[in-house]
Amino acid sequence: MRTVITNGTVVTSTETIPADVLVEDEKIVAIAAAGSHHWEEGADSVIDASGKYVVPGGVDVHTHFELPFGGTYVSDDFETGTRAAAHGGTTTVVDFAVQVKGESVRSGFENWMQKAAGNCAIDYGFHMIVGDINDASLKEMEAIINEGVTSFKLFMAYPGVLYSDDGEIFRAMQQAAKDGTTIMMHAENGIAIDVLREQAIQRGETDPKYHSITRPPTTESEAVHRAVILAELAGAPLYVVHMSSKEAVAELTMARDRGLNVFGETCPQYLHLSVEDHVSRPGFEGAKYVCSTPIRFKADGHQEYLWNALARGDLQVVSTDHACFFYDDDDELGRQKRLGEGNFTLIPNGLPGVEERFNVMYQSGVVEGRIDINRWVDLIATAPAKMFGMYPRKGTIAVGSDADLVVYDPNAAFTYSAPDTIHGNIDYTCYEGMEINAKIDKVLSRGKVIVDGDEYVGSKGDGQYLKRSMSQYLI
Amino acid sequence: MRTVITNGTVVTSTETIPADVLVEDEKIVAIAAAGSHHWEEGADSVIDASGKYVVPGGVDVHTHFELPFGGTYVSDDFETGTRAAAHGGTTTVVDFAVQVKGESVRSGFENWMQKAAGNCAIDYGFHMIVGDINDASLKEMEAIINEGVTSFKLFMAYPGVLYSDDGEIFRAMQQAAKDGTTIMMHAENGIAIDVLREQAIQRGETDPKYHSITRPPTTESEAVHRAVILAELAGAPLYVVHMSSKEAVAELTMARDRGLNVFGETCPQYLHLSVEDHVSRPGFEGAKYVCSTPIRFKADGHQEYLWNALARGDLQVVSTDHACFFYDDDDELGRQKRLGEGNFTLIPNGLPGVEERFNVMYQSGVVEGRIDINRWVDLIATAPAKMFGMYPRKGTIAVGSDADLVVYDPNAAFTYSAPDTIHGNIDYTCYEGMEINAKIDKVLSRGKVIVDGDEYVGSKGDGQYLKRSMSQYLI
Amino acid sequence: MRTVITNGTVVTSTETIPADVLVEDEKIVAIAAAGSHHWEEGADSVIDASGKYVVPGGVDVHTHFELPFGGTYVSDDFETGTRAAAHGGTTTVVDFAVQVKGESVRSGFENWMQKAAGNCAIDYGFHMIVGDINDASLKEMEAIINEGVTSFKLFMAYPGVLYSDDGEIFRAMQQAAKDGTTIMMHAENGIAIDVLREQAIQRGETDPKYHSITRPPTTESEAVHRAVILAELAGAPLYVVHMSSKEAVAELTMARDRGLNVFGETCPQYLHLSVEDHVSRPGFEGAKYVCSTPIRFKADGHQEYLWNALARGDLQVVSTDHACFFYDDDDELGRQKRLGEGNFTLIPNGLPGVEERFNVMYQSGVVEGRIDINRWVDLIATAPAKMFGMYPRKGTIAVGSDADLVVYDPNAAFTYSAPDTIHGNIDYTCYEGMEINAKIDKVLSRGKVIVDGDEYVGSKGDGQYLKRSMSQYLI
Amino acid sequence: MRTVITNGTVVTSTETIPADVLVEDEKIVAIAAAGSHHWEEGADSVIDASGKYVVPGGVDVHTHFELPFGGTYVSDDFETGTRAAAHGGTTTVVDFAVQVKGESVRSGFENWMQKAAGNCAIDYGFHMIVGDINDASLKEMEAIINEGVTSFKLFMAYPGVLYSDDGEIFRAMQQAAKDGTTIMMHAENGIAIDVLREQAIQRGETDPKYHSITRPPTTESEAVHRAVILAELAGAPLYVVHMSSKEAVAELTMARDRGLNVFGETCPQYLHLSVEDHVSRPGFEGAKYVCSTPIRFKADGHQEYLWNALARGDLQVVSTDHACFFYDDDDELGRQKRLGEGNFTLIPNGLPGVEERFNVMYQSGVVEGRIDINRWVDLIATAPAKMFGMYPRKGTIAVGSDADLVVYDPNAAFTYSAPDTIHGNIDYTCYEGMEINAKIDKVLSRGKVIVDGDEYVGSKGDGQYLKRSMSQYLI
Repeated sequence: MRTVITNGTVVTSTETIPADVLVEDEKIVAIAAAGSHHWEEGADSVIDASGKYVVPGGVDVHTHFELPFGGTYVSDDFETGTRAAAHGGTTTVVDFAVQVKGESVRSGFENWMQKAAGNCAIDYGFHMIVGDINDASLKEMEAIINEGVTSFKLFMAYPGVLYSDDGEIFRAMQQAAKDGTTIMMHAENGIAIDVLREQAIQRGETDPKYHSITRPPTTESEAVHRAVILAELAGAPLYVVHMSSKEAVAELTMARDRGLNVFGETCPQYLHLSVEDHVSRPGFEGAKYVCSTPIRFKADGHQEYLWNALARGDLQVVSTDHACFFYDDDDELGRQKRLGEGNFTLIPNGLPGVEERFNVMYQSGVVEGRIDINRWVDLIATAPAKMFGMYPRKGTIAVGSDADLVVYDPNAAFTYSAPDTIHGNIDYTCYEGMEINAKIDKVLSRGKVIVDGDEYVGSKGDGQYLKRSMSQYLI
Repeated sequence: MRTVITNGTVVTSTETIPADVLVEDEKIVAIAAAGSHHWEEGADSVIDASGKYVVPGGVDVHTHFELPFGGTYVSDDFETGTRAAAHGGTTTVVDFAVQVKGESVRSGFENWMQKAAGNCAIDYGFHMIVGDINDASLKEMEAIINEGVTSFKLFMAYPGVLYSDDGEIFRAMQQAAKDGTTIMMHAENGIAIDVLREQAIQRGETDPKYHSITRPPTTESEAVHRAVILAELAGAPLYVVHMSSKEAVAELTMARDRGLNVFGETCPQYLHLSVEDHVSRPGFEGAKYVCSTPIRFKADGHQEYLWNALARGDLQVVSTDHACFFYDDDDELGRQKRLGEGNFTLIPNGLPGVEERFNVMYQSGVVEGRIDINRWVDLIATAPAKMFGMYPRKGTIAVGSDADLVVYDPNAAFTYSAPDTIHGNIDYTCYEGMEINAKIDKVLSRGKVIVDGDEYVGSKGDGQYLKRSMSQYLI
Repeated sequence: MRTVITNGTVVTSTETIPADVLVEDEKIVAIAAAGSHHWEEGADSVIDASGKYVVPGGVDVHTHFELPFGGTYVSDDFETGTRAAAHGGTTTVVDFAVQVKGESVRSGFENWMQKAAGNCAIDYGFHMIVGDINDASLKEMEAIINEGVTSFKLFMAYPGVLYSDDGEIFRAMQQAAKDGTTIMMHAENGIAIDVLREQAIQRGETDPKYHSITRPPTTESEAVHRAVILAELAGAPLYVVHMSSKEAVAELTMARDRGLNVFGETCPQYLHLSVEDHVSRPGFEGAKYVCSTPIRFKADGHQEYLWNALARGDLQVVSTDHACFFYDDDDELGRQKRLGEGNFTLIPNGLPGVEERFNVMYQSGVVEGRIDINRWVDLIATAPAKMFGMYPRKGTIAVGSDADLVVYDPNAAFTYSAPDTIHGNIDYTCYEGMEINAKIDKVLSRGKVIVDGDEYVGSKGDGQYLKRSMSQYLI
Repeated sequence: MRTVITNGTVVTSTETIPADVLVEDEKIVAIAAAGSHHWEEGADSVIDASGKYVVPGGVDVHTHFELPFGGTYVSDDFETGTRAAAHGGTTTVVDFAVQVKGESVRSGFENWMQKAAGNCAIDYGFHMIVGDINDASLKEMEAIINEGVTSFKLFMAYPGVLYSDDGEIFRAMQQAAKDGTTIMMHAENGIAIDVLREQAIQRGETDPKYHSITRPPTTESEAVHRAVILAELAGAPLYVVHMSSKEAVAELTMARDRGLNVFGETCPQYLHLSVEDHVSRPGFEGAKYVCSTPIRFKADGHQEYLWNALARGDLQVVSTDHACFFYDDDDELGRQKRLGEGNFTLIPNGLPGVEERFNVMYQSGVVEGRIDINRWVDLIATAPAKMFGMYPRKGTIAVGSDADLVVYDPNAAFTYSAPDTIHGNIDYTCYEGMEINAKIDKVLSRGKVIVDGDEYVGSKGDGQYLKRSMSQYLI
């Protein structure tokens, strides 16, 4: 099976060159000067990419499908979630398997393997949330590497649920240091935040915006600082998830200036949404934008700071933390966001994004001039693939790589609006009304076209489980 | 009762002037140019201070007398401890009353009031250790102000004993912010430290030096950073006790550069002792120098950094954290330091210093040229008195102040050596063999001579309880 | 001659105590508890200070009287300027003698001694502006110490006039390091500023506000950084004059955190005036507020940063940089500020303040709650006296000090308005309309009342030249 | 003309993949999975790279050939220098054309074009040293862009020779900001340094090591800080050349943390040589290692800091500042380094390196584990090509790029030793005795093999002048 993509402009994290790409079966086997090799003669399939970009399929290393959370379930399962991802140009996701208290790590891993098996539109891997750190689970962190799980997420937030204390965190970091794996951290001082939350409710401050107000930026930056110190003591790589405040990124930057292997991601919601414009909308609508770390106040300059950190490299990855809940009642799932009407602490945390990330980041990043097109590819595909041991199989266009490719038309345009342009199992988009000055033409996953124009042409189960190696981003 | 001190050089935190000091009963009532007023005519008592300094009596705001700790008791009680202090030129101490789990704050306070009542050689006050933070004890923090307790100590170390978690700390800080009181913090990440301690013991690392090694500097600096952020969020003044590492003081300095009301003390042991020279002495002798925060490695430059911070003002106070335990068996108290032979985690934490601070800081500070004499007075008397609401009654030589005075002879000399030059209930001094190029001639407490040369001439019970007002050091 | 000030509240940089002060001839000879000594019996003069503060006379270490500058002369000479100072509670000034190119240091010094001799209302000293650094003048820097000149000012601004290049600055700093004297620095990158000025004029940007715009904050902070590095290399104390931007103070703070002997002053104009409200006033009125470093934009937050630095101690002194020029034509001096109509680069730099500093800082500092009354005394009297070797003779109320005292009534009030409440030879005040909730009742200079209420009751020539010793502020 | 390189491991700044590379004439036209396309059939030339790396030819953006300096001439001219570069795997150099005082920029450019024309073994471009900044030369900075010169070097060192003052620098930066070009800076405070040099000579400190001692690290960091501030004010990109001290890199890092377009290079000499081991060698041998910025003291930790900055990305480029002078007399050039015997200030500044950089950085970087092989390619080829507008023509292996390639054998080894393994016109190497665990097998320049094993098989004049575009490294 030979597929050739001709006459496009191949864009990677480092290059923008006119070239033809030859795919055999699932792999990229050759790249040549446009027209030089006439590969279209004899090809099984020819995709004309004239006037279009050929870019690596997106890699989203932070999704939550079918996750039980906040008394309900994330509304996207692996089928709907990965299909939405595919529509949005993302060809690899890394989701989170969860070990809960009292359970073994392996059992948590197998649960999630089962949820995903045979359901995915695109390739997928798993990080492991270690919710019960003890002698046994530490040993399992080492054993699970054989299954291709090389990154472990811990929570400094959510006391009583997924929270680990500093001693547990430190022991997990020591284990990671020994094994060469990476610790991912939800960095918020959940203990202090819980005091603020309780006091707010006692004062009758129940609206969604108080979710943001009771998680002030220094509760994030404090946790980042602490996580950095513990990781440094343990000698482990650290990757801080969903960073949203300038104070937190400043802590990360200082640690990086010391040469530590500490990294950070942010998400489109933190670059585009604000308390002023979204979370404090009248009525209960702000609940749509309730997630943790929270959306911040625009007036405090977080967004500019985050963009600058993405441009200069102190943040390395843009992922989504996709974890969506219906805003209005859903037949099957019942009340989701509405659970928190009258009490913001009961709003399920999370919002959709796996479908929009690729386009939204192109628009506000590349079209609006904050980053160049190579940096865009790096943030949404190459760096996440390297960060979590999937490179160069994923995240780039190179000889030998998986043929995960997006043909992207910079001369087309569309506007995000739910439900019309949205494909996930969710009733709103955070980017309602946002015009994108480009459009996905085709998405290939391991050589097979799975999205053609607006149509999903793949099959449930196309996606395979991806064993990951150690991070390729360490210094 | 009129006492006049003639012909001396009066030294305060700001001035060095030849002057006579007139004392009536317990107070300083006048200061005049030397010889100008002939107050000695008609005085009940004349002290000739020719060739000597007249300095404020020392104020030690961090002592522990009769404290149950580590399975034993601090060997100095209020009688022996305050008498030792008096011998060492210190005329005011602020000790710590302890509320333990399950007890009321008031009950803890009253226990300690009882221990001290009628036993003290010098005036004394109490900070309150709040070991059980809950709705009731928070209210008591406010009520106890009426008893002259305006500062509350919390522990980020010692999990399971005096440890408070971040939520408890934050609530206590909110209370302090509301009341105008000060939070004192033992800033070490005790949770992470406990992991290191357990692992060390498992590896057979049982010698006293592992006490220092398992409390690395960033476990202190991390806690300082966290305490600063929580205090900033709560709006409370913060005073970090017994700071010993450059990393920790650097965190404090950054916070002070932002204009926060955060302060720090260090102690003579951190300026003079080291792991290399003391804690790692052969056999078990290092146990004498086991305290928390720990003595640091000299090679890392902590001592120079601390001295510089004292000189430039980023540390404001030198106290002692006096909490002494017999090194060899004591008839009455039994094995104390020896409890930890074969297992450093069982060594009672603490060492003596209340008697040596005044002289030792003069020698290494003033004689050896690291600070000038006014800064010395500030660090050991004026700043602590201001910091904890005792100024100008204590800590200076001014009209209206208590006549707590030391006549100090810079032309005399002696050498510290236990037991000969030591007066407390303890069998060693950390400054064994250190020559002091000065000698205390007389100590007056509220106008009464209580030490004359090497002799204690006061009476048990001379010292009175001191109600303190709010900190006078805030910006 | 015995004068006694009874029943007042004596305020120093460290104390606020009810006390009587006894003055004999020119000196303070005793301080006693109020009413305790009945010194008023037999006194030559009794001043009743009931309900009033008794504070040290102000020390203004940055004035320019009778200075030729910008094609004209500062309008205040030593007679009018020091009399205005006296009215404003300032009893000591340190002015600047100037060595110009081609002249000897001594000749410059003698010129200024002659200008001042017999003309001053209050005591005065001189710093030396070294405008021509060479082998000979470096030697003279050492020799002039005998005349009581221990501080030397250099300019990184004003190329072609007083400017010194980095090599000249460095050599002067080496000389100061050797001698123990202090280098004062006008820290602005004058070379870069001149490019901006020329370009502004070429673009027709001629209004007074362009004076501020062409001296952006980083031209100040860059120069501070450079001066710090050169001083550190040379080992010399550094005192940066008239600091106005947060960026510059941040550089100073970082240097101080390293423990360097670097210090900074700001002036009332930088704490109260702004481009928005003053320099950009319609017509030419902004010229009144043209000085260098310039008045900054309020919106950038410099004032809050400066106040915080004063409160926390990273700025140590408030002086005035008094250098006034008539706004409207003056009979004797002709056009002054008006020289720059149509071309801001020709506006003489400088503004009045020697008279207002004491009151204005009390109002905005103490009354409005930004600093306490002791810090106010420190900033305007004690610290400047220590910084420039006049302590404890000047700047405090202590036995043996000069009886330079202000009786200050916190229950009176008045409003600044020119010409009515202004006594200098100048036709405006920068604080027009500002209400002061206090009033100077009496000013004593070396024991003699020289201002009584609104009246000057001293004589020309009361003021004596003050030989200064080395800085008493070094660490 | 078709050349195919088969069976090698292609290494770029991002990838390490087994692949065949097809070259047609001067360009890379295709890359394919090893063996997949059988391009060797019918190729004009087949290079078997089995077991070897295929890496981009090195790009050295800082060389000085045939430069008059220090009273003599750099001993390498464009013929010998570029041939040495080719031997060392470098296929592109960017040298410096010099405009001297009184000359036009174009005249300087044409002089250097003439020196190079027809002499070079490899492609070459020019930066322009602007030694006389004035209205005319600023305009010429814009005009010369048409000749492919897009970067302009200024000197804060060497007063009286190439030195520009801050106003000149600022104006050139404004011009660069307008044009989109880059300012390169020799950042040392030459004015202060000249004072130190003169004083050292006066004290009889004449040995080579005083060259390093009289250029202390803060004279570099100060200049970096100043250059950053001026570039920020002007809005121009800044590239600091030959950074050697941790203090300087720390300043750059802080500026980068603010998101500025500021960049830095270091050179192999700063990573491998030290005052202790090289500059202070007995006799006059230290003169071999005299260059500016100077070699630093090893004990101060600069080398570790520089390596860390290279690894973490705060330094982007490793170039050589190749400027060599014979240590012993040369027949043609006479005394060179020896000019400074008895007076270090007369030693011509500079040392050889263009030939060793590629190998030395591989050894100490990759073999010794400080950076990975992709980072090595980035530092010596990709980043410099991007930084100076030559990408993707130079600096990578991509379809459409110039076929500048090195076949590198990681299983061979050799030891640097002059004159045997050295090919430039110079009598020593700074890396004498250093073993390299790899060996260059073949060097191709635009598709033509010019070095085969140890043999130069190219022709004088193979190298072409390279017009460069604007920097492709800006954020």
